[in-house]
Order: sequence, then structure tokens, then C-alpha cells
Amino acid sequence: MVIIKNIQILPLNNMNKRKKINIAIVGLGNIGSYFYKYIVKNKKNLINKTKFDINKIYISARNINKKRSFKINKSIFLKNYLDVAKKKDINVIIELIGGSEGAAKKLVFSALRNKKHVITANKALIAKYGDQLSIIAEKNNVNLEFEAAVCAGVPIIRTLKEGLISNKNNKIYGIFNGTSNYILSTMDQKSLNFKEALYNAQTLGYAEAKPLSDLNGDDVASKLKILSSLSFNTYINNKISIEGIKNVDKDDIYNANLLGYKIKLLGVAEYEKNKIIQRVHPALIKKGSYVSNIDGVLNAVIIESNQLGQTVLQGEGAGPGATTSALVSDLCSVLRGNIKYPFVLPSKKRSRGNFKDISEKKFSAYFRLDVKDKHGVLSNITNILSKNGVSVKRLIQKPMKTKKNSSIVIITHNSDNRSLIKSINILQKKKYLINKPKFIRIEDI
Amino acid sequence: MVIIKNIQILPLNNMNKRKKINIAIVGLGNIGSYFYKYIVKNKKNLINKTKFDINKIYISARNINKKRSFKINKSIFLKNYLDVAKKKDINVIIELIGGSEGAAKKLVFSALRNKKHVITANKALIAKYGDQLSIIAEKNNVNLEFEAAVCAGVPIIRTLKEGLISNKNNKIYGIFNGTSNYILSTMDQKSLNFKEALYNAQTLGYAEAKPLSDLNGDDVASKLKILSSLSFNTYINNKISIEGIKNVDKDDIYNANLLGYKIKLLGVAEYEKNKIIQRVHPALIKKGSYVSNIDGVLNAVIIESNQLGQTVLQGEGAGPGATTSALVSDLCSVLRGNIKYPFVLPSKKRSRGNFKDISEKKFSAYFRLDVKDKHGVLSNITNILSKNGVSVKRLIQKPMKTKKNSSIVIITHNSDNRSLIKSINILQKKKYLINKPKFIRIEDI
Repeated sequence: MVIIKNIQILPLNNMNKRKKINIAIVGLGNIGSYFYKYIVKNKKNLINKTKFDINKIYISARNINKKRSFKINKSIFLKNYLDVAKKKDINVIIELIGGSEGAAKKLVFSALRNKKHVITANKALIAKYGDQLSIIAEKNNVNLEFEAAVCAGVPIIRTLKEGLISNKNNKIYGIFNGTSNYILSTMDQKSLNFKEALYNAQTLGYAEAKPLSDLNGDDVASKLKILSSLSFNTYINNKISIEGIKNVDKDDIYNANLLGYKIKLLGVAEYEKNKIIQRVHPALIKKGSYVSNIDGVLNAVIIESNQLGQTVLQGEGAGPGATTSALVSDLCSVLRGNIKYPFVLPSKKRSRGNFKDISEKKFSAYFRLDVKDKHGVLSNITNILSKNGVSVKRLIQKPMKTKKNSSIVIITHNSDNRSLIKSINILQKKKYLINKPKFIRIEDI
Repeated sequence: MVIIKNIQILPLNNMNKRKKINIAIVGLGNIGSYFYKYIVKNKKNLINKTKFDINKIYISARNINKKRSFKINKSIFLKNYLDVAKKKDINVIIELIGGSEGAAKKLVFSALRNKKHVITANKALIAKYGDQLSIIAEKNNVNLEFEAAVCAGVPIIRTLKEGLISNKNNKIYGIFNGTSNYILSTMDQKSLNFKEALYNAQTLGYAEAKPLSDLNGDDVASKLKILSSLSFNTYINNKISIEGIKNVDKDDIYNANLLGYKIKLLGVAEYEKNKIIQRVHPALIKKGSYVSNIDGVLNAVIIESNQLGQTVLQGEGAGPGATTSALVSDLCSVLRGNIKYPFVLPSKKRSRGNFKDISEKKFSAYFRLDVKDKHGVLSNITNILSKNGVSVKRLIQKPMKTKKNSSIVIITHNSDNRSLIKSINILQKKKYLINKPKFIRIEDI
């Protein structure tokens, strides 16, 4: 190292001297198996792009004897996943167990404490323990990489942390869940009801057997918390409003179409009057707009910043191929020696942020009230809305298939979220309602 | 460094020990000035995200006394830009002179030879000398970064080199020039002719006083060569077909609209039968498709790969803010010690690639022939097309404003590029033509 008047020339890690490292893959499900096979097949090609050679690939999974499409040499199999974190000749651990607690949590905490680089596809873990894990990684000067945890094939984490590092972001939003987007698109395009579309998605492998977190918004919420934290340089914050797509039915999609909208499940984190709001909910979006055209299992992320206006990233958000693309990108970053703070800034420089809940935010909204077609019902409804500060922009009443019932569709003017919810709660108790009232926000994007 | 049975633990560059480095900005035009002010203002914030402290910012420009919106302390001003490359206490040089020859070329070659990290926004230089520069950078183990050279605010270089590093790409294409896209969009939306739209763009600062390379396709060609090389792991290749937008007029835009198309200037690099074709030309694109909706100064890049299907990046492609975003992203990468091969692979591992020219490729195309309305003209035209292997899918003949003349618009079936060009060349010589015949390819994207 040349020292000139207290200035040091950057240390040049000579790329020509190849160092050897060992990696361990923990968890051999759908993703893990695909990733393992990819690495074995493409090792040489990857090595060309980095400064380190991959020497040995260890594997740990629940059962070595499970039927697999490939053979596992016993010499690379580690029976106890927790040994992986302590094994001295392992440098990088790829955690593909999943879940925010239990084995995944134990492994990742232990690995970072033992100064191993960690790569994970586990959004629930990062959304819950990312801040704590980050502190350990920084202290021990190892990488904690989680590109695969958010929108898989869309390189949004790397883009926020590196490509757009100079940005002051005002808003980040988009479609972050391929399963629910596929279901909503199919309900729309093939006129299916929710159950049929879900079954369709499961048959094609776009939805798991137990797709709860995809449908109730939790999956999007985990991703949004991570994105929001990276976009605004804050710690991960749990103040977030979460609604899934389970209440959206065929009639809502039909009505939305008539009114010129598509229904999409959105994740949004944005500054409003110097405070950050995080929210996950289905929304009516004008047909023809960019987000309305994102169909099927695609994901899209839109970042709004002072410096760049709008930046958009779109791509495949799930599946073994897309997830492997993200994992390999993380692995190559580690193998290049690109040590960086997991959340861009050192933990102590990140801020708490000033978060507020959704209640004060104003929305125009779609209400659907299926009612008994009796005298006075309509006036009672409009009366309730008016009393609660919700004014009607558009109202359509149409007879339902079952005679003597009507479906009333209302588009409201901009009203604060609290008033909208309050109105729905009051309406919900009315005896003239024959179904649960529907309430979907309208998003002008 | 701990050595275990020939396995070395990754060297951990301790992020907590802050090293100081000096940078130099060479060229203080529109971009240089904005970037300098940005760095001065945001130095502290940037430093938090990297392992190095920026100690001193040197500047070199043609004239220190030129009127500027900020003051330059003489102690940081270097009169001779070539001194910058040799000055011992400078670690990173940001080249913002521009042009593939002359000062920029001398500076960058000299800087890399003197083991300085180089960041440049110079697409012409990289497209012409990128391969040579890359060899020097690798030999001296310094970075050569050029995110700002391609689509400015869209982090496509970093995404290809890092985020999508695992991909085998089949095609990369999109809208890479904001100026020409702005002109085409304005001609369409405001029914302006080319000159009016250009004047408009110049007034708003979206086109330079001499916008030649924006309009003749050269700017897109430079970007495409770089993207193609990064996408397919080949050396930069000059086999490329280039057409600009200067021949597109108001009538073509009007006709395109009638037929359900928009006209966009595309850059496309793609594998076709194991060979790579590079091409830049205006194209008719179906209305409602993603690319047809990219309006104004926006840029969009679409990558098609075996692993991920389609990945899209969209954002601001020009201007000081967007370019600074890219430069800062490069600077932070250098300041993080993220040394990498400028073109992903080591130079000797890149391939020559197998490139072929556009002539064998098949296109459906739009012809416009403004002709004297005489007997036999139409049959002569269709005869020429037929003889040259071009078959007509759709033909519209309409009278022109000047009586006795007609405009014949033809959409052809898929025909190879050679036949299309040959037909146009024959038609061009016919005395019944009153204007130069028009030929625009149709792109099914």
C-alpha cells in the first residue's frame, strides 16, 4: 500500500490470485434443489466473473434419503443444519429454509455470529429480524444479502442499494405478489370466480397448497417493509395496514371493468407530509395505466424520487429460475468481495423514521352494497355516507340475478380512510344488506 | 487471514477503519457542474454508505474563469487535464469531457495506465475503446465504470453486470434515446412536423443545439454495442445497422396511427439462429404494447433471457440529475472497494461472438409511396414488389392534398431485409414518385 501524505491508494484485491472458498446450501426444497443444480452446472462460468473459486458445495436438508432428481454425495451432506454455521471451512451460507422463526432464524443468527456471509431468500425473516441481523453482520464485517427475498428475479434490492444509491425517494410501490396477481388477472381475463382462479394457479404451480400469506397480504407486507426501509433509510417498521385479496369477487372485477378499472393488489410506502405510510391492499387502477397492464405472475416495482422522477423495474417475481437468478447475483457479489452494509447505511446511521397509519390518508373508493330492493334503502345509505363525511361521485344501482335484490355500486369522492371505514362498518350492520359490503380503494397511478 | 487446509477465509476489509481518498472531476459542462455540486453537498451522506472517506475533490476544466453558479477554489483546480491522470494523490477520476477521441481518450487511457479508477459517462469512448480500456483496467486492478454512459438514470449496466449476472440473455432492446423519443412522441401527440418537434425539444433542453448523433441513430448505436457486449459476453462489435429518425414525417405518424401503430426509435441486439444481429432503426409498434407507451424523454430497456423471461427497466434516460445518479452509483461502488471486471468477464474469457448483418432477417414493413396518380402506377409497384419477393398484406391508396397525386401505403408480409431494401431502391428511381419512398420496419413487441 502506497501512502502519500496520509492518503492511501485503494487496496487492490488482485483478481488474478484466485482464492478458494466453500459454500453451504441449507434447505433443499423446490428453490434449493434448483439452485444447487444451477451452481454445480455453472460453477466455471460464475468463477470467471468473480475473484474467488468455489471449492466445495456443502448441503444440509432434513432428509438425505428423500427422492430427488439428483444425487447427493454423502461427503458434502451435513446432517445437523446448525453445524453449518459453525463449520470452520464454510465461508458463505445460503439459507433456503424459510419462515421467520425456528430453524431459519437460528441458522442465520448463528452464521453471522460465526462470521459467515449469509445469503437468504427469506422475506419473513428479514422483515422481522433484518435490523438485528444487520448489526451482527456489520460488526463481523460479513455480507447479509437478500435480493431473492423481494420479487425474486427483479433486481430491486441491488438497484436500491447500488444503482439508485444517490436517490432521495418519496414513494415506492407496485405489484409484489405473483400469486395474487395471477389470480386477479385470471378472474378478469377468464371470468372465473376466486376459487376457480386459485385452483388454476395451484395447478400451474403459481400458488402453494397453503397460499395464506400470498392471499392475505402478509407476503407483500414483508416485502414492502424491506423496500420501505431501504428506500427511506429507516429501520424496519411494523406500522403497516394490510388487506389481502380474499374479499374481491367476480362481481367486483366485473364492476371495475365497467367503470374503466382493473383490480390489483398493491404495496405502497410513501411520504405524506413528512411522514411515511405503509399499506397493502387491493386497489382499482385506471385501465391502460402501466400498473393495470402488469398481468399474470409478473412483479413490478416503481420508485419515485426527487432526482429521477419515476424508475420502473418489472420481471418475474417468483419461481425457482427467478429466485436462483437473485441468489446467484448475491453469491457473485460476495465472491467479488463486495462487502456492504445490509441496509445501505451503517445501522447506527439509519433513522427510526416518522411513520403514521393509513387513517388520515384520503382515498376515492369503490363501495359495493348488495341490498334488499326496498323503499328507503338508497336514501338511508346516502344519508349514512353524508353524515360520515363521505360524498358520492358516482352511483349505479342494478338489479341482481335473484329478484328483489339490488347491487349498489358507489364511487366516492376523496375522503379520509377513517371515514370510509366507519361508513362501511355502519352499513355492515344494516339488515337490508344481503352480503358483506365491499370497499376497495381507488389508486390514481 | 485464517488458513484452514488451504482454504482461506474471505479477506474482510474492515468497514470501520475509514480510509481517505481523493477524486478528480474532469470536464465542467452541464453534467460536470451538477455532479460537482451534488458531491460537495452530499459528501457526508455518501461516505456513510461506503468504506472510504472522500478527502479532496479536484477539478479540471478548460477555463477556471468561466462564469459558473459556484466558486472554484484555485487550490483544487488542475489546469492541465492530463496532469490529473498522473497526480499521485488522486485515486478516482471522473471523466466528463465526452467524445471518443482527443482529450477524453487521452485522459482515460492515461488514468488507467497510472492505476487510477475511472468513472465515465462517455458512451462513444466505451463503444469504441471499451475493450482496450478494459484490458488495462484489469491488468492494473482498477475499476472502469460506465453506468452513466447508457440510459443515465436507468441502472442497466449495474443490473446486467450484477443483478442479472446469472442470466443467459437472448435479446436486449428498447428505447435508448430520450431526444428522439421526445420528438416522435410530440409529433404524434401535438401533430407537429419534425422541425417543429425538434425546435420544441431544443427549447425545453431535451435536444442539443447540434443533435446529430441523437437523430441519426449513432447515440443509440453506441449504447446498443455496450449493452450487447455485456448481455452476450462478447467483445464490442461494429457490425450494426443504423438508421435514425430524420426520414420519419408527420404523414408517417398519421398513417401509423390509422393502422394501429406508434413509431419509435429502437435499438435491438438479439440472437437469431446462433448469430447476433445488432440494429438501430425506427419501427412501427402496436399501440397499447408496453414499448409503444414509453413517451417523452423516458428510456426503457427490455432483457429477454432463458432464466427470467422478460425483465424491464424504465426511467429517465438523460439530464444532469439522472446522469449524476448513475455517476454516484459508480463512485459508491468504487468507494466500497467493489473491484470488478469492466465487462463482467475477464477480457480473455470474452468471446468474439458470431455476428451477422441485418440483411437475412425477415420483417414485415411499412412502405409509403407518394406518386403521380397515373394509370398503371399501382400495377407497376405491385409488380416490382412481387418480383423481389415482397408480398403485400395491406394496401391503402388515398389522394394527396395536391390533386393528381396519391399516397400509397403498403404493409408487407414478412420478407427478408435485403428484398425490402432492394424493392425500395428500385422504386426510388421511378419517375412517378414525387417524394422519397418511405420504409419503416414493423416490430412485433
